[in-house]
Amino acid sequence: MSIKEALEEIQRATAEIIDFERIEKLVKDYYENGKEYTIKLGLDPTSADVHLGHTVVLSKLATFQKHGAIVQLIIGDFTATIGDPTGRSETRKILPREKIEENAKTYQEQVFKVLDPERTKIYYNSKWLEELGTRGLTQLTMHYSVARMLERDDFEKRFKSGISISISEFLYPLFQGYDSVYLKSDIEIGGTDQKFNMLMGRHLQRVYNVGKEQAVVMVPIIEGLDGVQKMSKSLGNYIGVTEEPKTMFAKVMSISDELMWRYYELLSNKTLKEIEELKRGVESGTIHPKSVKEALAAEIVERFHSKEDAIAAKEAFDKQFKQNQIPDDIDEFEVEDGIWICKALVEAKLEPSTSQARRDIKQGAVKINQEKISDEQLKLSKGEYILQVGKRRFAKVKVI
Amino acid sequence: MSIKEALEEIQRATAEIIDFERIEKLVKDYYENGKEYTIKLGLDPTSADVHLGHTVVLSKLATFQKHGAIVQLIIGDFTATIGDPTGRSETRKILPREKIEENAKTYQEQVFKVLDPERTKIYYNSKWLEELGTRGLTQLTMHYSVARMLERDDFEKRFKSGISISISEFLYPLFQGYDSVYLKSDIEIGGTDQKFNMLMGRHLQRVYNVGKEQAVVMVPIIEGLDGVQKMSKSLGNYIGVTEEPKTMFAKVMSISDELMWRYYELLSNKTLKEIEELKRGVESGTIHPKSVKEALAAEIVERFHSKEDAIAAKEAFDKQFKQNQIPDDIDEFEVEDGIWICKALVEAKLEPSTSQARRDIKQGAVKINQEKISDEQLKLSKGEYILQVGKRRFAKVKVI
Repeated sequence: MSIKEALEEIQRATAEIIDFERIEKLVKDYYENGKEYTIKLGLDPTSADVHLGHTVVLSKLATFQKHGAIVQLIIGDFTATIGDPTGRSETRKILPREKIEENAKTYQEQVFKVLDPERTKIYYNSKWLEELGTRGLTQLTMHYSVARMLERDDFEKRFKSGISISISEFLYPLFQGYDSVYLKSDIEIGGTDQKFNMLMGRHLQRVYNVGKEQAVVMVPIIEGLDGVQKMSKSLGNYIGVTEEPKTMFAKVMSISDELMWRYYELLSNKTLKEIEELKRGVESGTIHPKSVKEALAAEIVERFHSKEDAIAAKEAFDKQFKQNQIPDDIDEFEVEDGIWICKALVEAKLEPSTSQARRDIKQGAVKINQEKISDEQLKLSKGEYILQVGKRRFAKVKVI
Repeated sequence: MSIKEALEEIQRATAEIIDFERIEKLVKDYYENGKEYTIKLGLDPTSADVHLGHTVVLSKLATFQKHGAIVQLIIGDFTATIGDPTGRSETRKILPREKIEENAKTYQEQVFKVLDPERTKIYYNSKWLEELGTRGLTQLTMHYSVARMLERDDFEKRFKSGISISISEFLYPLFQGYDSVYLKSDIEIGGTDQKFNMLMGRHLQRVYNVGKEQAVVMVPIIEGLDGVQKMSKSLGNYIGVTEEPKTMFAKVMSISDELMWRYYELLSNKTLKEIEELKRGVESGTIHPKSVKEALAAEIVERFHSKEDAIAAKEAFDKQFKQNQIPDDIDEFEVEDGIWICKALVEAKLEPSTSQARRDIKQGAVKINQEKISDEQLKLSKGEYILQVGKRRFAKVKVI
């Protein structure tokens, strides 16, 4: 592969690259002189579940590894163990050390499904952030102004609409930037929502005289199954990389055709040209969109499991979908006598919340023993029931 | 003295008191149960010269000591040793440790002319601020919002007019507030310009569950000799408490009549009633304002030197002023051949800067050997000269 082709591969499906010249130099230097370089990715250890949203950036990192990069994975344990002592912030819960280690371990297992462990270094940023001390941190804060910090989109919006920003929130971009100072990273990668923080790394490398200013690679933020919001665990619209083949397959099949093309572009190993051909086939009516979606689902299952798993998942999906039968192997839950139907749906993990359950009942998407229900106040008495939400989500509940 | 009288004495010449009820309780508890309490004052160790501006707050502290307080003097060494690594800020020069110790020592010598050393504790705030570490400081910043910080007058003005505020500047009020947390201060005292920072101490004592919230005593900011700007060393409009009796006397005599009444109110030990009587005497023409000013000058010299010094200073001043003679005991300086007159005036300590010297020459306020000069480019050749600025500043220079 030529350097030109390597660079094209690197650029594919990125949203924006800052200082591409620097990347060109690094890749050239690797191919001509065997000199390696580093690319940094920060991970939030408050949740260990890697979902497809993460794999966009992980695949890009794998590409960089192929072309000479050593990946620096930063476990952001420092802020995770601090939390918010006022208890005001939902997103800043204190995480015990053991939980962070556990999440980091899970991360590694999942991440190494995509990355080359031989070309990956894992760091905990508490190491150098603790060393900063009151003195070092105060000096760090001298390098950025309040006005410029308030230029970050989310800060600006909150400030203008009178939503409180704690001063500590101004420190987090500085911490992230300082990671790049300490590790002397050549490149940082992240979603487009990380642009401000990644440019901070560039800025701080300059003021701390690191002798380089990192290039910044931004990948698109992938939408969740709903096609609207960012894929995230807390929104429940995600496909986890450790999910069962059948679940994974079914989740891909549930997305819209429009979102399917977006996933192809961001997640598939198909070339852009191949994807174009598929699109033309669908438009001209020679290919059915469902078979294109099945191919994507199979590709994704195969990546995180195996070819056999992908085939089995497809068969299971077909059986359930085509025959609209109750699957053989649905999960069982025991619930208390007199339980409210919405609560039962949540406990059986068919619904993320009772309010969502209520909405689905209203819309006629919920069945008990294959009978559609409409009473959202329904209570279940002793007995066994097959609960169903939509076409493909089933559970058996025993009311005892 | 009754508790009521003690509280009146405490309140005299203060600008504002927050939570006076708390002070009432503390003083009452002292007089009834002998229980002591603490009052905190932060000192900036970047300059060791105590001037009359400081004595307003020091006198108030002495009053508190009389009524049961233990004074906590904080040498703010932490921020002084940090400085501004970007070198952008004139006001944040790094101070070496030895210089801080030296300034702190000078401070103590000067401060104990007013305060009772037996009832004064000296602290260096680097002790507990260093202990905070990155973690503790990050937690500290969680307790205050950006929007509220920007409510501080000077921040608000700068933010609105687009003058850069470094994020580190948001940390300093938090540091000052944390001093009160660590020392569990009952009261903090400072100039009116310290209101925001002192209220921060109250706020942080609450969130850190100190079990008390400090009362805040604000004293007026005293104007310098010009009667307009805050008295400060850098503006050159100050009277230092270690200055020579004659200089001190002459400086007081140089102020306007209006400023004289202000100094009486803030600096004199005369009661408000006595001051009122003096005012009436001046207004009705029975007392000459000059004699009232002389009495103030003598009182101030006596406080920082002795009664004898005050009498001698007055005599020297009278002699010089009335006879406009060259004093007997003027300082001598050796300067280089061909020295520029403005530079000679600075070296002879008659002028704070060559630009000021230039202005004074233009205005005809500079004499050489009692002859007014107008050439601001003048160079002095070998010989001895009596330099004079205004009526009362003299020096002898030997050009060698």
